[in-house]
Amino acid sequence: MIQGHQTWVFESKPVIIASAAVGGPFEGNGALANDFDKLHQDTWLGQGSYEKAEKKLLEEACEIAIRKGGSKKEDVQFFLSGDLMNQIISSSFAARTLGAPFLGLFGACSSSMESLSLAALIADNKFGDNLIAAASSHNSAAEKQFRYPTEYGGQKPPTAQWTVTGAGAALVRQQGEGPKVTAATIGRVVDMGISDPFNMGGAMAPAAVDTIEAHFRDLNRETDYYDIIATGDLGSVGHQIAADLLKKHNIKMDKQRFTDCGILIYKKEQPALAGGSGCGCSATVTYGHFLNRMRKGELKKILIVATGVLMSPISYQQKESMPCIAHAVSIEM
Amino acid sequence: MIQGHQTWVFESKPVIIASAAVGGPFEGNGALANDFDKLHQDTWLGQGSYEKAEKKLLEEACEIAIRKGGSKKEDVQFFLSGDLMNQIISSSFAARTLGAPFLGLFGACSSSMESLSLAALIADNKFGDNLIAAASSHNSAAEKQFRYPTEYGGQKPPTAQWTVTGAGAALVRQQGEGPKVTAATIGRVVDMGISDPFNMGGAMAPAAVDTIEAHFRDLNRETDYYDIIATGDLGSVGHQIAADLLKKHNIKMDKQRFTDCGILIYKKEQPALAGGSGCGCSATVTYGHFLNRMRKGELKKILIVATGVLMSPISYQQKESMPCIAHAVSIEM
Repeated sequence: MIQGHQTWVFESKPVIIASAAVGGPFEGNGALANDFDKLHQDTWLGQGSYEKAEKKLLEEACEIAIRKGGSKKEDVQFFLSGDLMNQIISSSFAARTLGAPFLGLFGACSSSMESLSLAALIADNKFGDNLIAAASSHNSAAEKQFRYPTEYGGQKPPTAQWTVTGAGAALVRQQGEGPKVTAATIGRVVDMGISDPFNMGGAMAPAAVDTIEAHFRDLNRETDYYDIIATGDLGSVGHQIAADLLKKHNIKMDKQRFTDCGILIYKKEQPALAGGSGCGCSATVTYGHFLNRMRKGELKKILIVATGVLMSPISYQQKESMPCIAHAVSIEM
Repeated sequence: MIQGHQTWVFESKPVIIASAAVGGPFEGNGALANDFDKLHQDTWLGQGSYEKAEKKLLEEACEIAIRKGGSKKEDVQFFLSGDLMNQIISSSFAARTLGAPFLGLFGACSSSMESLSLAALIADNKFGDNLIAAASSHNSAAEKQFRYPTEYGGQKPPTAQWTVTGAGAALVRQQGEGPKVTAATIGRVVDMGISDPFNMGGAMAPAAVDTIEAHFRDLNRETDYYDIIATGDLGSVGHQIAADLLKKHNIKMDKQRFTDCGILIYKKEQPALAGGSGCGCSATVTYGHFLNRMRKGELKKILIVATGVLMSPISYQQKESMPCIAHAVSIEM
């Protein structure tokens, strides 16, 4: 059912039966390496292009989640996925491999929680069972496309982020054992006029805050309801802006409780500047790190606020600012 | 509820309270000009780029549908939209203008029915009301991006299609008067190995047939249930292939009943080669032409099978074939 303006409450509490995270070499050297199901030493994954490497990451994450859930490819009823590439080719080609009916999504880096929200909506209403919700990104595929040719080797400012090479997938069922998807807040597009693609965290922060405010308002809930409230990939710059904005809006947010997937994923000494970004960031940290901690009993209730820059050629060619969006999903043991 | 493997049946029958179609000059000279709510003489719509022109088409279609439905922008609960552009910028920027919580979708030309399927799912289960489902395309924005620079003026083969400059939007409510969304079949990715972007109809035909078969199998329904079964944009070449495939698969399909939005939209004398294509094709023909005919009482039951090529840079650079998908939506008076 809908509660408030934009929050879905899943009364039957669909279950994440299994999940998987697959990453690249930079992630393998990161702070959460142990939470990945599979790590590659080769950013190409033996493929002929970075795009094909990303597709393979996504296919592997789906395969592992399906296997861990004791299911088979043929038994996946719907596949919901998005990524950063033009025409979401990683998801589209993975959907060809998977063979399940496919709902392609684009919410930039928020796609991970967009796909989980819709999968939970379908499962909660008995419109499908055994669904895969997924998202992926690849550093070289994305940064080549949206910023600089990698070979150019240009210096980046400290506000820039590092696109995660990784894919995460969740196998969602109507019933079973595991972390449960209890609510989702669908975000609005928020644009504060930032046009610098090297400050995506700053651009996304107001969207994250808008969705966080909506979530707690719609559910009439206090922030201490959750053990962890994690933004998707604001990085250190954007996350601080979000914390400041929440304070300004009188939303009490405990420092211990409020974190960011983009800050968690890499070690301080890695050259990731302000932190990780990309669909693969919130997808791998949620489906790997956070769900592992839930399964171990370390966390009971988490809110993942995946935030995306709906960036564009227009941004570059015509000095348009960047519209941003965030979707928040509540997961409880 | 789900019926069969991949078909959603909307028992509460969500209503398309109002719909709108906006087009460009080529559409204004077309066969269905009278079914458009607004036609532009200028492909730029007075904007600084084709991308911005497409965004404006989409914004106008949404505005008109909202106004015709006696609603206001502020009362739209969710906006579901997709288009052909990188990072679905037309939809993302229109979502910024609209201000409603946004679910961005990418199903290439199938996005029109993907957005309507999900809007109906949300309305049917009371997870939202007063939703906008939309899709858009722009000839110059799409063909510049995915084929040739327009200025190149290269000859196209007769299997090529003409991307429609247009946007369609539907205002969907839980209850009310108007055509009702009764079922949706979510398609699988089908890829028959075609890698020629100038034969998208041929590539898409098997996906359309796969979804049509699934629809009638899942619902245990005969094709004569519908007055019209319209593919989204197969064009004359693809549509004939689809008809042949259906015959081969022993699915009885009356020639009178089986049509294609891409064939209907232009006049024979227009240089559109095999016909119209793009998200805007099925969106404008459905939300303009077909729904107008339903409201006039000429049609009672229609099935729109919007089909998309999930084409890609990989297709071009690495001779990959094109994965295709089709989503079918059943609309009844």
